[in-house]
Amino acid sequence: MTYIAPLADMRFALREIAGLAGVAALPGYEHATDDTVDAVLEEAAKLAGNGLAPLNREGDKVGATLENGVVRTPPGFAGLYKEFVDGGWNSLPFDPAFGGQGMPWLLATTVQEMWQAANMGFGLVLLLNQGAIDAIHHHGSEEQKATYLPKMISGEWTGTMNLTEPQAGSDLGQLKSRAVKNGDHYLVTGQKIFITYGEHDMAENIVHLVLARTPDAPAGVRGISLFIVPKYLVGPDGKPGKRNDLKCVSLEHKLGIHASPTCVMSYGDDGGAVGYLVGEEGRGLSYMFTMMNNARLAVGIQGLAIAERAYQQAAAFARTRIQSAVDGAKSPGPVSIVHHPDVRRMLMTMRAQIEAMRALGYFTAAGIDGALKHPDKATARRTQDRVDLLIPIVKAWFTDLGNEIASTAVQVHGGMGFIEETGAAQYLRDARILPIYEGTNGIQARDLVGRKVAKDGGEAMLALVAEMRALVEEMKAAPGDDLAAIAAGVAAAADALGDATKWVAEAARTELVNALAGSVPFLRLAGTALGAWLLARSALVAQTRLAERDGDPAFLEAKLVTARFYAEVVLPPELAQLGPLKAAGRTVFALGEDQF
Amino acid sequence: MTYIAPLADMRFALREIAGLAGVAALPGYEHATDDTVDAVLEEAAKLAGNGLAPLNREGDKVGATLENGVVRTPPGFAGLYKEFVDGGWNSLPFDPAFGGQGMPWLLATTVQEMWQAANMGFGLVLLLNQGAIDAIHHHGSEEQKATYLPKMISGEWTGTMNLTEPQAGSDLGQLKSRAVKNGDHYLVTGQKIFITYGEHDMAENIVHLVLARTPDAPAGVRGISLFIVPKYLVGPDGKPGKRNDLKCVSLEHKLGIHASPTCVMSYGDDGGAVGYLVGEEGRGLSYMFTMMNNARLAVGIQGLAIAERAYQQAAAFARTRIQSAVDGAKSPGPVSIVHHPDVRRMLMTMRAQIEAMRALGYFTAAGIDGALKHPDKATARRTQDRVDLLIPIVKAWFTDLGNEIASTAVQVHGGMGFIEETGAAQYLRDARILPIYEGTNGIQARDLVGRKVAKDGGEAMLALVAEMRALVEEMKAAPGDDLAAIAAGVAAAADALGDATKWVAEAARTELVNALAGSVPFLRLAGTALGAWLLARSALVAQTRLAERDGDPAFLEAKLVTARFYAEVVLPPELAQLGPLKAAGRTVFALGEDQF
Repeated sequence: MTYIAPLADMRFALREIAGLAGVAALPGYEHATDDTVDAVLEEAAKLAGNGLAPLNREGDKVGATLENGVVRTPPGFAGLYKEFVDGGWNSLPFDPAFGGQGMPWLLATTVQEMWQAANMGFGLVLLLNQGAIDAIHHHGSEEQKATYLPKMISGEWTGTMNLTEPQAGSDLGQLKSRAVKNGDHYLVTGQKIFITYGEHDMAENIVHLVLARTPDAPAGVRGISLFIVPKYLVGPDGKPGKRNDLKCVSLEHKLGIHASPTCVMSYGDDGGAVGYLVGEEGRGLSYMFTMMNNARLAVGIQGLAIAERAYQQAAAFARTRIQSAVDGAKSPGPVSIVHHPDVRRMLMTMRAQIEAMRALGYFTAAGIDGALKHPDKATARRTQDRVDLLIPIVKAWFTDLGNEIASTAVQVHGGMGFIEETGAAQYLRDARILPIYEGTNGIQARDLVGRKVAKDGGEAMLALVAEMRALVEEMKAAPGDDLAAIAAGVAAAADALGDATKWVAEAARTELVNALAGSVPFLRLAGTALGAWLLARSALVAQTRLAERDGDPAFLEAKLVTARFYAEVVLPPELAQLGPLKAAGRTVFALGEDQF
Repeated sequence: MTYIAPLADMRFALREIAGLAGVAALPGYEHATDDTVDAVLEEAAKLAGNGLAPLNREGDKVGATLENGVVRTPPGFAGLYKEFVDGGWNSLPFDPAFGGQGMPWLLATTVQEMWQAANMGFGLVLLLNQGAIDAIHHHGSEEQKATYLPKMISGEWTGTMNLTEPQAGSDLGQLKSRAVKNGDHYLVTGQKIFITYGEHDMAENIVHLVLARTPDAPAGVRGISLFIVPKYLVGPDGKPGKRNDLKCVSLEHKLGIHASPTCVMSYGDDGGAVGYLVGEEGRGLSYMFTMMNNARLAVGIQGLAIAERAYQQAAAFARTRIQSAVDGAKSPGPVSIVHHPDVRRMLMTMRAQIEAMRALGYFTAAGIDGALKHPDKATARRTQDRVDLLIPIVKAWFTDLGNEIASTAVQVHGGMGFIEETGAAQYLRDARILPIYEGTNGIQARDLVGRKVAKDGGEAMLALVAEMRALVEEMKAAPGDDLAAIAAGVAAAADALGDATKWVAEAARTELVNALAGSVPFLRLAGTALGAWLLARSALVAQTRLAERDGDPAFLEAKLVTARFYAEVVLPPELAQLGPLKAAGRTVFALGEDQF
């Protein structure tokens, strides 16, 4: 089946949770009017549903292939990519000075959800290019920007990120690739692994961003520099010229995202690949950190996207698969399995978690816009702190849920879910990379605890807790069982998150290993609690609009139901991570290494 | 890497939790002496590690293939199977009257864990054969038993179970295959899907057990009969003779268990396959139910087995993969990742859950032996009730955990986990079928709530809760922090399980749909709580033996650590399913079918 972008839900989250109107009021985003945003969403939904989605299953089956150094993407990909570039889709959020459309990240994130849901194997080329654009835009010279950005922003050229080496995964300080100065450029040698779209047939040039060590550089991360190493050297005419000394030597055989070529790249086999230093020597890793928030948000959105896609397929199957009668039902005949209580529980869980993710994801994207554009420096700074805090949560919580929801979608299908032709299994295979790449989810939790919460003693998180409590107060004035039950959930979530934050901030100061042992449960608790808060906001909006007869009543009533289900069924086990996160440090190191 | 059977843990669970001595004291099991059991375990461990395990990865890669109706298993499988049969491994638990060794199911279950951990794709042929043997043994005529059982018990012939049809998955009442009486036999026609090892090259005959409908049978499940339909008709000499009218028409392309051929079987394309009625017409489905407990226990054990295999690989990787220094550690240099708190948390979680599963799985297997052999009828009956209650928990909880643990093992590997060569991804793919086949986990939960708990108003479960409370009392006399913390966990688990059971029993009586909406969370709570109880028993034994200097102190101390980690870190979020299981019914049907 295809993918249908959930436009009503997306618009609701954009407007009611992320505050699109506020974003559009920021200086520089005035052109993001309601009409423009609607038009973009509708056109993107068409391209996602009719262009990207139909190539997803075949892309998985055929995969990317390598022959004599040439990587071929699956049938239809190159044509689709051309259509994508010609339609101007790649340039949406980028700087108008280099041909971008300068749209808010909030809108770009919403559209990104569509691309990733429709076809993650295809969508990956866009994310890597985005990261490379960010790096050059922030840290490149004026000449580098002029040379590379217009083509990369249009999408005619694509970018890659070359970090990992076999001995240096999460620990980039171990990397060995070398770059030796040679006149106005450097000669780069070394092997890089896990290079997404490191070679392919969809663009006329590929701009590799490569981390490497200069000869006299200090050991560890401070000896690492960042280089632009284009596949074809750019001539004085701005066009791709001489082939650079680099190649894809093999493709990984992966569990999922088969359409996306994951390359082993070899640089400098014939003497050295020509590379151009970005910024200053020794600052490569710090440059990487500047683009991390956008990249990690994008991976979180992939988690949301694959969850939405899997949910759509599971719901369609459940509505049409006729099986046993329901125990205790009035009618004895077989019914579609959506009438079975446990199938309903699975669908409601998926749905509630997806809406919570979408709310928090768009909320965070709006924060990126606010941090970039808000005219008041203090507000921008505070917003940036909040974004910094939320990013690891979005990345890790969304991608864990993406896996859980993709697995539940398989379960809804029963035996058919295990058969590849059905398509549900692909989402599970594709989703499995998300908690790993762009910093494993364990690293996200370490970042949340060891950097973000430790930095301000939990202040930014406690500010969110205070907002949760304020919402609970606000909801007390609202009538009805649903809102009361939802408010009770948010109150419990605020208590648990407040307590956990204080404990983590203190432990990070006094006994870091205990804070780290509990970091993953803490992140999970935080994500779930914040999700409860934003779903409560959506429920309150829905109830208000229902009273004002403003909008589709069935849609608005569903928001109340979903938020209540989340508060009563999804939330409690996750809040009970409070005990475990405090207790884990007590026993995690009680066994000797050789006892495992 | 290979698989090393965890013999010390297995022996501990067999002796201290499942009560091997008590089982060996049952009439008919006198030959299961300590020495014999130890010898069987040690030989099985060798065959699993040196024979089955090395073929696992290649079996996945090559898979089973179909050409001109002939199914070939992966390289080495047929030779291994012959070795297996020649070694007498297939006959372990079966009736000595037909050539079996009559060993306790407890021992057979322990050995089964090894086969399934070493190579699930291979191990499946054993499970299906076991089911077919059980069916004929319980319900076949004397002539049928004499004809088929000796060869099936030796393993020279294998058995299959033919239930599912495209329109009839969990709902067997819908099936359409027909059987028409024709003299002393029936002619069977129809198509069956998802037939595990429906055709292969490892045995000289395949004995299909087929559910089909006789011409005048009533609609629904009461019109279904069970037939023996052998691949080769057995001649008067007892040897395979004329080929029967049945064939494998295609193999499914699956997410995992690639080595195991999953066949679409066609019966009677040339007029009708010769089939022999088992028992009476119309009772086919009730016959299936008699062998369900053994089959569901075996699938649960597969969940445990794949978890153990995945854990072993993750632990080995964590001990040897050198990466970043640990934050806050004294030494600044890179260390193996087993020194990272979150990696440790993952390994401890896997380990604790595996030990809990093994304890409950062996405990249940011992119950099967007690129900079969206990000379006191009332005790046997009570034990059978307990087994009936535990089986859906073992099947569903173990297989859910099998998936979670296989996924965690991928996560421990980081990027390498996503690469198929590493092997961790295979466990995740293989594990994914377990919550689906032999009754989906939703169906297990429905069985637990709608049949087992509803039948006796929760009495059998509350008897377990009482035993949990008695253990808590017993532990109060024991010294030390660890046992106090573990006892507190078991007390909380008993309270939650007692409360949940009473609620479920009442809801099943008054508002079944609410009980069913909460059935999966209830099953999960029950499994986790019972696991806490048995780990607490193991901790108490370990502490006692430590005081008596009886056994390896490091091994015994590890039991205390694992049980405490389980009680403090694993248990609390699962006990918090108490609220959700009661609340789910409130909202699961609040949305219209068309809103999904």
